[in-house]
Amino acid sequence: MTKQVGVEDRMSPRYSYLSHLECGKCARLHDADTPRQVCECGSPLLARYDLASLGHALTPSDLALREPTLWRYHELLPVRDPGAVVTLGEGMTPLVPLPRLGERLGMASLYMKDEGLLPTGTFKARGAAVGISRARELGIKIIGMPTNGNAGAAWAAYAARAGIAMWIVMPADAPAMTTTECMATGAHVYHVNGLISDAGRIVARAAQARSWFDGSTLKEPYRIEGKKTMGLEIAEQLGWAMPDVIIYPTGGGVGLIGIYKALLELRELGWVSGPLPRLVAVQASGCAPIVRAWRAGAAESEFWEGASTIAFGITVPKALGDFLVLRALYETSGCAVAVDDADLVRDQKLIASLEGAFPCLEGAATVTALRHLLDSGWIGRTESVVLLNTGAGLKFPQTVEVDVPILDPNDDIPMTVDA
Amino acid sequence: MTKQVGVEDRMSPRYSYLSHLECGKCARLHDADTPRQVCECGSPLLARYDLASLGHALTPSDLALREPTLWRYHELLPVRDPGAVVTLGEGMTPLVPLPRLGERLGMASLYMKDEGLLPTGTFKARGAAVGISRARELGIKIIGMPTNGNAGAAWAAYAARAGIAMWIVMPADAPAMTTTECMATGAHVYHVNGLISDAGRIVARAAQARSWFDGSTLKEPYRIEGKKTMGLEIAEQLGWAMPDVIIYPTGGGVGLIGIYKALLELRELGWVSGPLPRLVAVQASGCAPIVRAWRAGAAESEFWEGASTIAFGITVPKALGDFLVLRALYETSGCAVAVDDADLVRDQKLIASLEGAFPCLEGAATVTALRHLLDSGWIGRTESVVLLNTGAGLKFPQTVEVDVPILDPNDDIPMTVDA
Repeated sequence: MTKQVGVEDRMSPRYSYLSHLECGKCARLHDADTPRQVCECGSPLLARYDLASLGHALTPSDLALREPTLWRYHELLPVRDPGAVVTLGEGMTPLVPLPRLGERLGMASLYMKDEGLLPTGTFKARGAAVGISRARELGIKIIGMPTNGNAGAAWAAYAARAGIAMWIVMPADAPAMTTTECMATGAHVYHVNGLISDAGRIVARAAQARSWFDGSTLKEPYRIEGKKTMGLEIAEQLGWAMPDVIIYPTGGGVGLIGIYKALLELRELGWVSGPLPRLVAVQASGCAPIVRAWRAGAAESEFWEGASTIAFGITVPKALGDFLVLRALYETSGCAVAVDDADLVRDQKLIASLEGAFPCLEGAATVTALRHLLDSGWIGRTESVVLLNTGAGLKFPQTVEVDVPILDPNDDIPMTVDA
Repeated sequence: MTKQVGVEDRMSPRYSYLSHLECGKCARLHDADTPRQVCECGSPLLARYDLASLGHALTPSDLALREPTLWRYHELLPVRDPGAVVTLGEGMTPLVPLPRLGERLGMASLYMKDEGLLPTGTFKARGAAVGISRARELGIKIIGMPTNGNAGAAWAAYAARAGIAMWIVMPADAPAMTTTECMATGAHVYHVNGLISDAGRIVARAAQARSWFDGSTLKEPYRIEGKKTMGLEIAEQLGWAMPDVIIYPTGGGVGLIGIYKALLELRELGWVSGPLPRLVAVQASGCAPIVRAWRAGAAESEFWEGASTIAFGITVPKALGDFLVLRALYETSGCAVAVDDADLVRDQKLIASLEGAFPCLEGAATVTALRHLLDSGWIGRTESVVLLNTGAGLKFPQTVEVDVPILDPNDDIPMTVDA
C-alpha cells in the first residue's frame, strides 16, 4: 500500500503535499480543506504536509530550473490547485553580502535577506500571496484584518487581484504610505485611535457580526506558510546549508515562526542537516514583550503597556503566537534583544551609506542587535549571520534628515574641501 | 586562426564579450577600456560585443541554472572582471500577467514587466548597477549626475556600495523620496530651480572644472547596457520569444533604446527570430518632444518649451539619445503616443484595483497609451502586449486620494450597503 502511494507520487505528483492542520499548542488535528481560524483552544493552527511522500517525489535539484518566486516550493505550500495561485511575482529576494559593514564590524560572513524587493515593498507580501491564494481556493469572499500597515497594504493588493473584498483597520499613526496603498487597491480602510490590539478587537467584532473571515496574524493558518518561504530561500541560496545565526525584527513574530518551521521541514526531508541556526528576535526597547519573557525563561509573554517605538511594524504588545516565537528561540539556543530607537535610526544610515541598501527601520534594528551581540560575545566574528530586512526604507522615509542646498540654473556647485 | 579562437572560447570562456565602443551616430569606433563619455561628434557611444565568438560559447539553456539577477547575462554586459560587479541582487523582475485588466480591455495576452521590484524601487537600478560596476572597473572615483530623481537615487546607492563619490543635481520639485534616498546613502545633493536640462548644464560645468566623470544619461556608454537587460529578460521569460508590442514610458529613452539593442543582439545570436516587437514610446501631453518628432517623421526631436507633467520621470524636454529612440520606433514599425495627466492618474488606480499592482505614474501612462492604441485599432485585441512599469507607486504616492474614517477603540465599523 505504501509502495503504491509512492508509485502514484512519481506518476502524478501533487502540486501541494498539504495533509492537515495541527494546533500549535494542544496538538489537536483539523481538516485543512474548509476555512479555519484558530483551534478550539484558541491557539494558532499550523499546516502539516505529507513529507514522507514528498521526500520520494522531489529533490532539491528538481527546484533549480523553476521560476524565481516563492511558488517554486509549491509542494510545501498549502494551495492545491495551481489555478488558485494569486501571484505578483513575489519571492527569491536577494541574499545580499554586506562586505563593507562586515569589515567595519570585523566579520567575514554577513548577509542581508532583502525583503524590500517584493510587491508592496515588504515581507508581508509572502504571507498575503499564500494566504489570499488559499482563501480564494477555499471560497472566502470577504476578509477583515487589523494591521500596523504593511500587512494591510499587502493583503489589499493580493485581495484586489483575487477579487476578494478587504476590510482593514489600522492605528491612525501607522505609516501613511500603507493607507495610500490600501486605498489605491480599493480596500475599505479605517483608522483607530489606538494600537493594533485595538484594531484587532474591532475586526474580531465585525467578523463575528458579519461572517467575515478574520485575517489577523495567526488567526488563519496560511500566512505563516508564505512567511516560511524566507527560510526555504535562505537555505537554498546558501546551497542547502544554514547560517549560524538569523536575526529577525519581531512584532507578531510570524516570520520567525515560519523560518523555524521551514528549517524543521527541510531537516525532516533531509535537505539540510546539522544544528539549526540560532534565531534572534529583535524588539524595540519601547515594546519588548518577547525579550522580557525570554529573559524570564517564560513560555508566553505578557501584554506590554504603553508600547511605543519608531519602528512601527514591531509595535505588537502581545502576539498570539508569542509561545511559538519563544519556543523557536529556546529550541535553537537563540535569544531576544531589545534595541533603542536612536540606535536603529543611526544604523539605518550606516548600512545605507556603506552598502547602498536602504532598509526599513525594523530591518535596521537587526544591525543594532548584531552590534550588541558581537560586543557581548554571543555572536563570534567568524560566524555566518543573516540579517532579515523586512522591507524597503521607502515605506517610511521620515527618519532621514534632508537638508539640500538650492541652486539657480546659472549657479555652480560650490567648491568644498572634498570635491 | 578563427578555429583556434573558438577552441579557446570553449576552454576559458570570457566573463564579458565586450569588444569596443561605436558611436551611435557617426559609427566611429573607440577603445572600450578607458573611461569614455561621448564621441568626438557629441553623440552617445554604444557598447559592441564579439557576438560571433559568444554564439559558439553560450546557448540559452546555459542560462537556465544561473542566479535570477541581470548578471545572468554577463557575457552581454561590459564588466570584464566578476570581482568588479557591484550588485544588490537586481534583475529578473516579474513579467506579471494582467488577466483582469486584459478582460476589461478585451485582450487575452497582456503583461506588465514590474520594475518596481528592484533595489531603489525603479528600473534605474539596472543602469546604475552596470554603470557603477564598469566605472569601478575603470578606476573612476567621482561621478556627477543630473537627474529627475530616480536615477540619482539608484546611482547614489550603488556608488555607496562601490565606494565612489556621487554629486547629484536634481530639480527642486523632483519627488521628495528620491532626495531622501540620496541623502541616506551619503551622496552630495543639490536642488535646482529648473528642469533636468538645467541640472545637466550645472553638472557639465562642474565635471569639466573638477575632472569628475559625467554620469548623465547617454554621456557614458554603460547605463544603457544595464537597461538592455529588460529586453533580455522579457525574451527569456517568454521562452525566447518576443511579444507583438512593448509599451514604454519615455523620458531620456535609454530603456527603449536598450530593449531595442538587446533584441537586435539576441537576433544576431539566433536566440530569437522573426519580427521585433513594435516599440511604443509614451510621453505626457505636457512634455512630448518624441511624439512631435515621430508625427513629423523627423530623425531628431526639438527642445520642448514649458515642459510639465505629473509623471515627473518623463519630463525630459530634449533627450541626447532622441535620434536613437526615433530610429527604434521607425525600424520596428512602432509609434509614439502622448497621454494626459488626468488619464494616467485614473489608470494608476484602475490597474491597482483590478490587478493589485501599484505602478508609478510613468508606468500607469502605458495603460492609458494601450487604451488609445486599442481604440484606434493600432493594437489588435489578440496581440500580445508588454507594459513596462518603470517603478513602484510607492516612490510618489501623492496622487492617490486618501480619506479614511477614524474610529475609537470601542467603536464598530459602520454598517454599509456593501459590507
